[in-house]
Amino acid sequence: MEDLDRQEILDDVSYLIEAKQAPKLRAIMLDAYPADIADLLTHMEGDYRHYLFAALDRHTAADTILEVDESTRQELIEAWDEHQLAGLVREMNSDDAADFISELSPELAAKVLKLFEPEESAEVRQLLAHEEDTAGGIMALELVAMAQDSTVEEAINEIRKKADEIETINHVYVTGEDRRLVGIVPLKKLLLAEAYTHLSAIMNRDVISVLVGTDQEEVAKLARKYDLLSVPVVDAQGRLVGRITYDDIVDVMQEEVAEDISHMAGIASAEDMRDSSIIRTVRLRMPWLVIGLFGGLVAAWVLSFFEHRLQDNILVLMFFVPVVMAMGGNAGIQSSTIVVHGLATGSIDVGDMFRRLLKEMRVAFMNGFLCGALIWVIITIFWRSPEFGFLVGASLLCVMFIAALVGASVPLLLKRFDVDPAIATGPFITISNDILGLFIYMAISTMYFWYWQ
Amino acid sequence: MEDLDRQEILDDVSYLIEAKQAPKLRAIMLDAYPADIADLLTHMEGDYRHYLFAALDRHTAADTILEVDESTRQELIEAWDEHQLAGLVREMNSDDAADFISELSPELAAKVLKLFEPEESAEVRQLLAHEEDTAGGIMALELVAMAQDSTVEEAINEIRKKADEIETINHVYVTGEDRRLVGIVPLKKLLLAEAYTHLSAIMNRDVISVLVGTDQEEVAKLARKYDLLSVPVVDAQGRLVGRITYDDIVDVMQEEVAEDISHMAGIASAEDMRDSSIIRTVRLRMPWLVIGLFGGLVAAWVLSFFEHRLQDNILVLMFFVPVVMAMGGNAGIQSSTIVVHGLATGSIDVGDMFRRLLKEMRVAFMNGFLCGALIWVIITIFWRSPEFGFLVGASLLCVMFIAALVGASVPLLLKRFDVDPAIATGPFITISNDILGLFIYMAISTMYFWYWQ
Repeated sequence: MEDLDRQEILDDVSYLIEAKQAPKLRAIMLDAYPADIADLLTHMEGDYRHYLFAALDRHTAADTILEVDESTRQELIEAWDEHQLAGLVREMNSDDAADFISELSPELAAKVLKLFEPEESAEVRQLLAHEEDTAGGIMALELVAMAQDSTVEEAINEIRKKADEIETINHVYVTGEDRRLVGIVPLKKLLLAEAYTHLSAIMNRDVISVLVGTDQEEVAKLARKYDLLSVPVVDAQGRLVGRITYDDIVDVMQEEVAEDISHMAGIASAEDMRDSSIIRTVRLRMPWLVIGLFGGLVAAWVLSFFEHRLQDNILVLMFFVPVVMAMGGNAGIQSSTIVVHGLATGSIDVGDMFRRLLKEMRVAFMNGFLCGALIWVIITIFWRSPEFGFLVGASLLCVMFIAALVGASVPLLLKRFDVDPAIATGPFITISNDILGLFIYMAISTMYFWYWQ
Repeated sequence: MEDLDRQEILDDVSYLIEAKQAPKLRAIMLDAYPADIADLLTHMEGDYRHYLFAALDRHTAADTILEVDESTRQELIEAWDEHQLAGLVREMNSDDAADFISELSPELAAKVLKLFEPEESAEVRQLLAHEEDTAGGIMALELVAMAQDSTVEEAINEIRKKADEIETINHVYVTGEDRRLVGIVPLKKLLLAEAYTHLSAIMNRDVISVLVGTDQEEVAKLARKYDLLSVPVVDAQGRLVGRITYDDIVDVMQEEVAEDISHMAGIASAEDMRDSSIIRTVRLRMPWLVIGLFGGLVAAWVLSFFEHRLQDNILVLMFFVPVVMAMGGNAGIQSSTIVVHGLATGSIDVGDMFRRLLKEMRVAFMNGFLCGALIWVIITIFWRSPEFGFLVGASLLCVMFIAALVGASVPLLLKRFDVDPAIATGPFITISNDILGLFIYMAISTMYFWYWQ
């Protein structure tokens, strides 16, 4: 929503709230998208927020509370008792219900679950039992599954029966003996087939499915590769147990991106941008800062180690410490980012490792050569010292080459040993390259002054 | 595909190619997913690659060539003449056809287009006329649109007619006078309604659509916010002209992420990971490296500027230049990354600017205070100099605070003036913080030695 639009709507809604026009608000919000109502709620003050949320009909309220950010959600939840919350949960799909309940305090969650029929609460408990970042953790139980000898007409009747319960239906899953998944029929095919056709005659037999324990990142990769709208989930015996829908797949993609970007920036895990707790944010950011601090102290030690060896020359060398550090850092980050992102999206695989490394090394050599030559020219012109310019330029070439090599090879090695390469981007690469770069610069300088002077 | 599986399949396929079993290959590949065939092609040698691709039936070949990477595609295209290419294009959706033709050389594209009926080639030309990164540039013309007084039965007949031409149909669009978009009917509703029902009675009237010229990033944001499977595209008069499907929306999301990550790493635009040209890669990475180089030279100038003022003390201060630079860089990158990513995903908006800045400042002060205190303790213990430790610690606090402030405020300011904040992450922030940080460190040190010694 644009800022101006929102302000106008906020004014209108606030007016209705002040006039205590709950029924009118409910009627207006029935036509609004939950994402827009969530947007309004986030931009309202406490009492207004509670009044508007309480005015919503149950179905809209359930959709809306799933769309607001975590801190607003917590605030809204605190104002409601377990009976009201159970009413909301009843309106949700099983996967959303499980996510919602997992965010409640354990006591409140138990109270809410007690209000359900044993069968209903068993469903939610079953979903809660799966690891959060696996296919089982993001799947919904609501789906249309038919035996393979059912007819098109029977399938349509089943869809009719479940239409209220399931928001989006794009496929009918076909199961064989023991609920094993054997095929899939897109709604389009169902619409075009004759009523008495057997599903087995029109189904697509080559179904792409995932196991309950499959990592959610893997699910998103599959969905992207094969352009899937939803992914069926099966257990170890191949029995259909759930499906992952489009919106959850997109959420996973976003989550993974946020994680990768956080790692690149040296933040322990994805920060909720709308989270207002300073302490939580500090805690997420401190670990890499402290590691960086010790890295910097090691760098100080490297410099002091060379102090006596370089004697009178140390000071002039010091002036170019920032440029050597920064350029090593830049070259390393460029290489590692490209490799990490390539590995994450699957456009580089471990089989390509050597080809990829070779390319990075050639690029790094060329970049280092160009930058080294440039700084040589600049130092020769402005500091009038071609020898010293050559020393800095040669160091720059070595430092940038090594930095890019480290940047590209560390993530590839991590991947080879099944460690998430994203942790290798950003601070880790930068810190090791800072230390390595200073060491190389100082070592080359020591040799230079040793031999030539 | 896992490496082991792929090697086995590659061996089998290579055997069939050597035995010149084209019909058998065609039959096998009919059951394979185009993404998997593309995967095989990329991992094959030249002649084998051409043989396998030529063995595919036309429909599979068209789907497959859209899935391979750019350099493999160019290689495959070069081996085919315009008649063969036109045959492929005929099998494609209009949006894929336009993308494919836009990758051909202008002469070849003209030759291919000449082989089409005027009407067909006009469609493709029309799509080619839109800006690549707008809704018009990614939309397809194939869709099912019905007048609002049509019945459900008529809509189903229309779908039947178009079923071959359109791969995925999830909605029927309903148009009023002059092809203006007035509603949308999901297939599920169509399936459940009686045959003689008018579409106007069951359609959803609150349709979210985009204009032909809408930026593709905006389209992806809308689709994500409202969980849309496809987005209808209208012209300035509200007339339905196309639709953007799920797979293209996901592609846009991926593209935007790749762009943002590249900017963060100081790479001019998203690198194609599978691109093997060294020169192209060097050209993408050099601009920020050169800017970084000049930034480093400015840093050298800052240090030399303070040389005379600090005299004997300069050398010991120099040892801590790396730690001050690195910590300023880290704090700045953390803040700017969080703000840029928040702005890109819409979880921060410009209205939140001051609240957001205030939070970043408080976090930065706390982080700076903790790191400053830590380095004070360490220098006191290991260098036995509490005064000097205090000097470095106080500098660290100031540098980290200012760096985070710059990191958070620059993207917010850019956004305020409608510049893409992604360019402000990574190198730009790092370079300005390097220079600013060194200046602050040196200035504080100068004052310190001036007053206290």
